Amino acid sequence: MKKIRADRRFEQIYDYLLHRIERGEWKENDKLPSVRILAKEMNVNRLTVFKAYQLLKNNGKVVVKEKSGYYARPKHTEAIRPEQLDIPIVSSYVQKNHLSEIHRVPADYQFSKALIDPNLLPNLYLSEYVKKVFDLYPKLLGTYSSLQGDEELRDFLSLYFNQRQQIHLSSEELLITSGAQQAIDLIAKVLVKPMDAVLIERPTYSAAIDIFSQYGARIIPTDIHPYGYDLVQVEIAMRQYKPRLFYLIPTFHNPTGYTVPAEQRKRLVELAEQYQCVLVEDDWIYDIYFERKPPPSVFTYDTEGWVLYIRSFSKYVAPGLRIATVATRSSALMKSLLTAKSLSDNGSPLVNQKIFLHYFSSQRLQQHLEKLRIALHIRKDIMEEELTDAEGWSWTSPHGGLNLWVRLPEMIPMDALLSESINRSLTFVPGTICDPHHELRSRIRLSFSYMNEQQLREGLRHFIHIARTLEKQGGY
Amino acid sequence: MKKIRADRRFEQIYDYLLHRIERGEWKENDKLPSVRILAKEMNVNRLTVFKAYQLLKNNGKVVVKEKSGYYARPKHTEAIRPEQLDIPIVSSYVQKNHLSEIHRVPADYQFSKALIDPNLLPNLYLSEYVKKVFDLYPKLLGTYSSLQGDEELRDFLSLYFNQRQQIHLSSEELLITSGAQQAIDLIAKVLVKPMDAVLIERPTYSAAIDIFSQYGARIIPTDIHPYGYDLVQVEIAMRQYKPRLFYLIPTFHNPTGYTVPAEQRKRLVELAEQYQCVLVEDDWIYDIYFERKPPPSVFTYDTEGWVLYIRSFSKYVAPGLRIATVATRSSALMKSLLTAKSLSDNGSPLVNQKIFLHYFSSQRLQQHLEKLRIALHIRKDIMEEELTDAEGWSWTSPHGGLNLWVRLPEMIPMDALLSESINRSLTFVPGTICDPHHELRSRIRLSFSYMNEQQLREGLRHFIHIARTLEKQGGY
Repeated sequence: MKKIRADRRFEQIYDYLLHRIERGEWKENDKLPSVRILAKEMNVNRLTVFKAYQLLKNNGKVVVKEKSGYYARPKHTEAIRPEQLDIPIVSSYVQKNHLSEIHRVPADYQFSKALIDPNLLPNLYLSEYVKKVFDLYPKLLGTYSSLQGDEELRDFLSLYFNQRQQIHLSSEELLITSGAQQAIDLIAKVLVKPMDAVLIERPTYSAAIDIFSQYGARIIPTDIHPYGYDLVQVEIAMRQYKPRLFYLIPTFHNPTGYTVPAEQRKRLVELAEQYQCVLVEDDWIYDIYFERKPPPSVFTYDTEGWVLYIRSFSKYVAPGLRIATVATRSSALMKSLLTAKSLSDNGSPLVNQKIFLHYFSSQRLQQHLEKLRIALHIRKDIMEEELTDAEGWSWTSPHGGLNLWVRLPEMIPMDALLSESINRSLTFVPGTICDPHHELRSRIRLSFSYMNEQQLREGLRHFIHIARTLEKQGGY
Repeated sequence: MKKIRADRRFEQIYDYLLHRIERGEWKENDKLPSVRILAKEMNVNRLTVFKAYQLLKNNGKVVVKEKSGYYARPKHTEAIRPEQLDIPIVSSYVQKNHLSEIHRVPADYQFSKALIDPNLLPNLYLSEYVKKVFDLYPKLLGTYSSLQGDEELRDFLSLYFNQRQQIHLSSEELLITSGAQQAIDLIAKVLVKPMDAVLIERPTYSAAIDIFSQYGARIIPTDIHPYGYDLVQVEIAMRQYKPRLFYLIPTFHNPTGYTVPAEQRKRLVELAEQYQCVLVEDDWIYDIYFERKPPPSVFTYDTEGWVLYIRSFSKYVAPGLRIATVATRSSALMKSLLTAKSLSDNGSPLVNQKIFLHYFSSQRLQQHLEKLRIALHIRKDIMEEELTDAEGWSWTSPHGGLNLWVRLPEMIPMDALLSESINRSLTFVPGTICDPHHELRSRIRLSFSYMNEQQLREGLRHFIHIARTLEKQGGY
């Protein structure tokens, strides 16, 4: 299939059709020429003609009749407005996924994206690697994965966890998911009933708040600080609300970048056992540390099955693959997760698992990670350097991850800052969406991972300028 | 990474370790040699040693201590049994996915699998094709898909539907999902609240019953016959129960193979509008017809947004990819589906979408489909030929799809038939799991698509023999 880049031709076709309809050359209810015939006549790709007809349809200029083609729209017909239909949608799905909404805003300076710049990945090498994988498994595209995930991949991961993270588990204790988002969703399905209490950090990953809310959870926040949790507060919350689970991101926390120290991790597991509260540990970016490896995961302290460990990989290995894993020592939980997974998608695609396995287990990937850490460390330093110019802005420098969590002077009106930034083609994540109470109004998350060094500097200068102007105006 | 095939070495290592533990050479709580050291000493792969330790752990012979390795198990310690833990799981996820349970039974003759034999797919050609795709998009592995699905793929599909199925829609009316199972799950999330009525065919795809049940639906069945529905019965059900949606498989229906005629399809859309009941049309195997194309989809009759059209592809194109699409004319529904998709997995992986696009739009695939239809037609004929020997067995010959829906003599005890078949390494789908009332006790689904012609004949002879023997015994 040829890639079609025919914007000008598209406009010509569209204008040609519109003109003839408006001049009345085709009368109401006249049948218009078919896509095939018009494409031949005008010597353009059928897709171009098709898209022109679609736009005419959307603009109410033509109607489509089932099995017979396009017709000039009769003047008295109202355009169909399906959004006005009375289709009864479950109310929680009318709510937004707040982060996803911000990500869909097109912008030149995307400080909202906690994603790795694709230019930092060894793309050509990856593509060559894929070809080897298809030589190794010639029937790969014809084969389904097992529900729990490819056995070879789970075997490798159990060995990897054993050697690299001192986590001892068998391949039966691992489930492969299509990204960490799916893992959180499956866990919520299996553990959360409407009105159950769910403990989260404040702030936290905003999509997690949205997911638990969909399942009817009462969200109970506990603050996270540069030194970790207030464990007295955590224990009180566990005793008082009896939360079903505690969703936590103890390593290079999103959005703050804070890391919970080892002694608190150990104590958390004791609390979990005591109050029968499952800990859902989201280890989203383990390998992106700047000086030294992070402390052992909370999961390493678990022997009784109270910790569910979500480990993401593909974000920094190969985002196009979407691979994560969930580990649990509880076979009862694993069994329920498998049921949920089977009803959600019947197992992640095998192709992605095999490509991931062979690339992630290669020497080359490990060398690449070393470079990636350095590149991201440099970008973090650049962001911090630029932000020192902004008076009254403060943050705690993170030891890993992709974000700075910045406190702005209270004089800056946050809603105005967001809308003005979007107007000027710049996005960031406002602290309010990371907080179930929608407080934290003077906090923002800025990601330093998605743009190159030049863009970072430019974007930050624009941003500081926008913020200062608003600050001087004292808001709108 | 080398593929490890070291079964004998594994046994040696396991026996060596077990022997020394049981002889008391290592005392209770003695630290055992590390994986690394033992692998070197015994000159085997680390994974082999690791798996031996895992098996010893599972068998209660060693214990693992966090961050320090393996220890001989003290005699007084009870093995940890996480399945006895009191982790509160949402009750519906303790239920089984019935079909998935049957699929996990290993068997020589898999009449339960409505999947295409991987040997019928052009695997080598597919692998070559993938390499071209990675040359076309060198940064493919580093890139996320948009939430709604790759735009190039959606553009192509809208053109394809227009030209091949006389379905006129724009790419904005399509959502790409990871298989049809995910599509059903997202739709259930968005439309079904606890205690909502959901209309289904009886029998139907058993995983769909399981999915709607998870969301708390009251399942209302309406019978499907070789000639289609009893539309009077359907209308009564719509009036009486006000179902939120009707999940239907009108083309080469699963499990029966029946096809609903065009005039009923048109009338169904009128009923849907009248009773405000969304039709969820699962078009699972459109391209696998034996004589002529199936009638137009129910979706072609929809102008008001009351039909959600799920179209599967990868089952017969490349099962390893897991690609399906959902079409809707309602922008309100699309918006909610996008929210649900974003919270489920943030978008299907781009790699799979690009590979699918380029292969599915190739001339070669269309030629291959022609061959595939013939091969499956032959397998269907073989199955029917073998079954004519079985006295009292009856079925309606399907015009497409992968299954025969067979009525057995009532004398054959179904539970005994299933367990005896599994004992003899043969699986099929009992009619009871395709029926929310668990009636239909003398019906079974036999898939002719997964085994080759030789296996089909052998397996069916075994199966008829098992059934006849039970029939003569009059049950257990």
